[in-house]
Amino acid sequence: MSPEEFRRLAHQLVDWVADYRAHVANRPVMARTKPGDVRAQLPASPPQHGQSFTDIFRDVDEIIVPGLTHWQHPRFFGYFPSNGELSSVLGDMLGTGLGVLGLSWQSSPALTELEEVVCDWFRQMAGLSDAWSGVIQDTASTSTLVALLCARERASNYSLARAGLHGEQAALIVYTSAHAHSSVEKAALLAGFGRENLRLIPHDADFGMQADALAQAIAEDLAAGRHPCAVVASVGTTTTTAIDPVAAIASVIAPHGIWLHVDAAMAGSAMILPECRWMWNGIEQADSVVVNAHKWLGVAFDCSLYYVRDADHLVRVMSTNPSYLRSTVDDQVKNLRDWGLPLGRRFRALKMWFLIREQGVAGLQQRLRRDMENAQALAKLIDATDGWCVLAPVRLQTVCIRHDPSGLSAEDLDRHTLRWAERVNASGEAYLTPAMLDGRWMVRVSIGSVTTEWKDVAALWDAVKREADVSASETT
Amino acid sequence: MSPEEFRRLAHQLVDWVADYRAHVANRPVMARTKPGDVRAQLPASPPQHGQSFTDIFRDVDEIIVPGLTHWQHPRFFGYFPSNGELSSVLGDMLGTGLGVLGLSWQSSPALTELEEVVCDWFRQMAGLSDAWSGVIQDTASTSTLVALLCARERASNYSLARAGLHGEQAALIVYTSAHAHSSVEKAALLAGFGRENLRLIPHDADFGMQADALAQAIAEDLAAGRHPCAVVASVGTTTTTAIDPVAAIASVIAPHGIWLHVDAAMAGSAMILPECRWMWNGIEQADSVVVNAHKWLGVAFDCSLYYVRDADHLVRVMSTNPSYLRSTVDDQVKNLRDWGLPLGRRFRALKMWFLIREQGVAGLQQRLRRDMENAQALAKLIDATDGWCVLAPVRLQTVCIRHDPSGLSAEDLDRHTLRWAERVNASGEAYLTPAMLDGRWMVRVSIGSVTTEWKDVAALWDAVKREADVSASETT
Repeated sequence: MSPEEFRRLAHQLVDWVADYRAHVANRPVMARTKPGDVRAQLPASPPQHGQSFTDIFRDVDEIIVPGLTHWQHPRFFGYFPSNGELSSVLGDMLGTGLGVLGLSWQSSPALTELEEVVCDWFRQMAGLSDAWSGVIQDTASTSTLVALLCARERASNYSLARAGLHGEQAALIVYTSAHAHSSVEKAALLAGFGRENLRLIPHDADFGMQADALAQAIAEDLAAGRHPCAVVASVGTTTTTAIDPVAAIASVIAPHGIWLHVDAAMAGSAMILPECRWMWNGIEQADSVVVNAHKWLGVAFDCSLYYVRDADHLVRVMSTNPSYLRSTVDDQVKNLRDWGLPLGRRFRALKMWFLIREQGVAGLQQRLRRDMENAQALAKLIDATDGWCVLAPVRLQTVCIRHDPSGLSAEDLDRHTLRWAERVNASGEAYLTPAMLDGRWMVRVSIGSVTTEWKDVAALWDAVKREADVSASETT
Repeated sequence: MSPEEFRRLAHQLVDWVADYRAHVANRPVMARTKPGDVRAQLPASPPQHGQSFTDIFRDVDEIIVPGLTHWQHPRFFGYFPSNGELSSVLGDMLGTGLGVLGLSWQSSPALTELEEVVCDWFRQMAGLSDAWSGVIQDTASTSTLVALLCARERASNYSLARAGLHGEQAALIVYTSAHAHSSVEKAALLAGFGRENLRLIPHDADFGMQADALAQAIAEDLAAGRHPCAVVASVGTTTTTAIDPVAAIASVIAPHGIWLHVDAAMAGSAMILPECRWMWNGIEQADSVVVNAHKWLGVAFDCSLYYVRDADHLVRVMSTNPSYLRSTVDDQVKNLRDWGLPLGRRFRALKMWFLIREQGVAGLQQRLRRDMENAQALAKLIDATDGWCVLAPVRLQTVCIRHDPSGLSAEDLDRHTLRWAERVNASGEAYLTPAMLDGRWMVRVSIGSVTTEWKDVAALWDAVKREADVSASETT
């Protein structure tokens, strides 16, 4: 495609995207698609000859968009927000348009240096000391895998340079809470620790990890000749945004040289608010931390910030240095391929740079405070309503709720919960995700899309009450 | 940023990108930046209040762009091409504009189903049987890591569900060639095998793996009680685009149940040309294969296609199923989070769909054939020139060359090679990457940017001869 054809079509596309964002609130939030519906509308084989963009854009409208759940919708309350703030979208468009790669510093110096700068900007915004160095990974799953690989190699004194994990005398043990994100278990298994060497530490009434129970588990492993290797603490769990006590955990593990990784994928954005920083009190004792700037903060996905205190160790674990990637300045620069898994690197820093500059720190703070206030206000409404309860402290922007009409068995209550949530989602008015808490279903209301105002939260609450009443009347 | 502000600024940005692509040939290919230059021009701290896009765009022009090496330049001959064909850029812009995520099928059904469709389109384009299932990963580094994790878990009968690698009786062994990409070694080390359990098999005169030597290494490991686990064969190595004999390797390992992963990151694009498919003869015996559609084919980075024959095994190794990600249709759909490392997923299928539809298979074939012809023509010119030699068979689009003025010691020859390559790069007229071959430096001419025509290759050859003469006169 020539630059002139691109110009013409990209102008069309920009108008399409602007219109989509302007009117997304009019669409049903959740896709009403049945499995296979989209695939069935697409040719099974690729076209031999080029097709016009008239056809392609029509298929986008008629086949693709009806098959989407709209994450940028003001009444999207599912999972966690994944805000693609429009200033950040501009940065991503520029990055893709430039089409440069960061295989090494030399392969596009500005890509590496801008990434250093924006990671350091966020470090300051989050109140982290200058002992931390940051890099952009794709997702927290990857960041946590990198953290556990680094923990494994520190505990084993670089077993990767010898016989690997198989050659270790003692089993290496990883600790986390049962409320940790599924990516923590996945990372531990993929890093080769094995499920038998993963300890799920009990939580307290607010769903945070019990530091005493952690201490006890470590003592038992040490007594049995095993090697405690890493703790993953969550600041803002996925189910309830619960907070593991980082400082207490750090105190427990400090004498044993255990790696402390803090998963602040969600709550990390809130660290730009000084009033929230108590949530990761003790963070300066950690070895690594992940913050997903592509969640609440608003950087278009993917942009997971990974910070470490010992960058030399990270590079030693991750580095490769084949001749075809060397340059004469390698001793003066960062080669970010040695800071994570992939060699290739998009110019992701642009989308973060554009967001922070266009919004300013104050603008970002204001939006996050709005969402936290909306969450508190919703929790208050729910608590004041008969038959409804808020199940966990509302620390950030997520409210965990259940409707409990009297007289239901536990199984009927689960069915009722799932039914009313599905009814809300099927209505198209709002989107929610149910989750299990202590073995029973509940529903998470995750507030924080860029365009979500109080009226959207109020509309959700109306829909929730209405559908729960319908469901209850079917049950009783 | 409101949709209307976005509309206005995105129109400006589109014009900027169209102009950039139209005139990139006028820029020096390689950045002339010194380490720290870009960072020094940027504020050390983030702005408290929002800034105007007049300022932001100005900084892009004045600070960022001069710090770039231009990968979309017609005289970019470095590394391997990373073509962001403009139709694909449109698809990426749409994906970022939509801002939907594929955490699960339900979280945006069309995202998952279009990914299935385009992966299957490319499967057909590359002549693979319908026994293969594909998924998009970010890079070949990740795809190869996933392959070795799957190999590890098959050989160990799912050690991750028990005590991990530490609990294995026998050491698991990985085999590859010394010419394999650095990501293979990295993946083996990160997957926990250990460097002592990685065998680098000797290559033949054309730099392909010797199947006999592989057979011997496996026999030795078996005799010593070790457990041969995986072979990574390269189809198109990074240094010379050499080809490991997949069929012969498959025959050697078939009796032992060893996992065969084929790294066709570069050459895989050429499999859309029937005349090239002999290069991976035997591919149907492999367990997994990676093709980087973001290289020569032209999908905007990142888009690494990973195909497996046993998708159930992949899912068993990678899957997590927390309550907050479940949906009522999970048994009828693919949840692509279970096909790789990250949970979050961009709508990357759009950029591949746009490219294939706009170009058509025939259009893509034509461009790749052009590049292969240009490579052959350049090799012929070089071979016919005194003092110059082509060092490896030209299978695809890369020509490995050396200028060898008579009478230079090996060390002086290395210095000469690096010096003339650096002089070409510093001239801004073209960009090349040196690499080591059998312990001596040479220079790779990697042809294949979308806009590279024969006149660009000819201009490169003029610059190369000129700078080599200058360098030679300084040496003698």
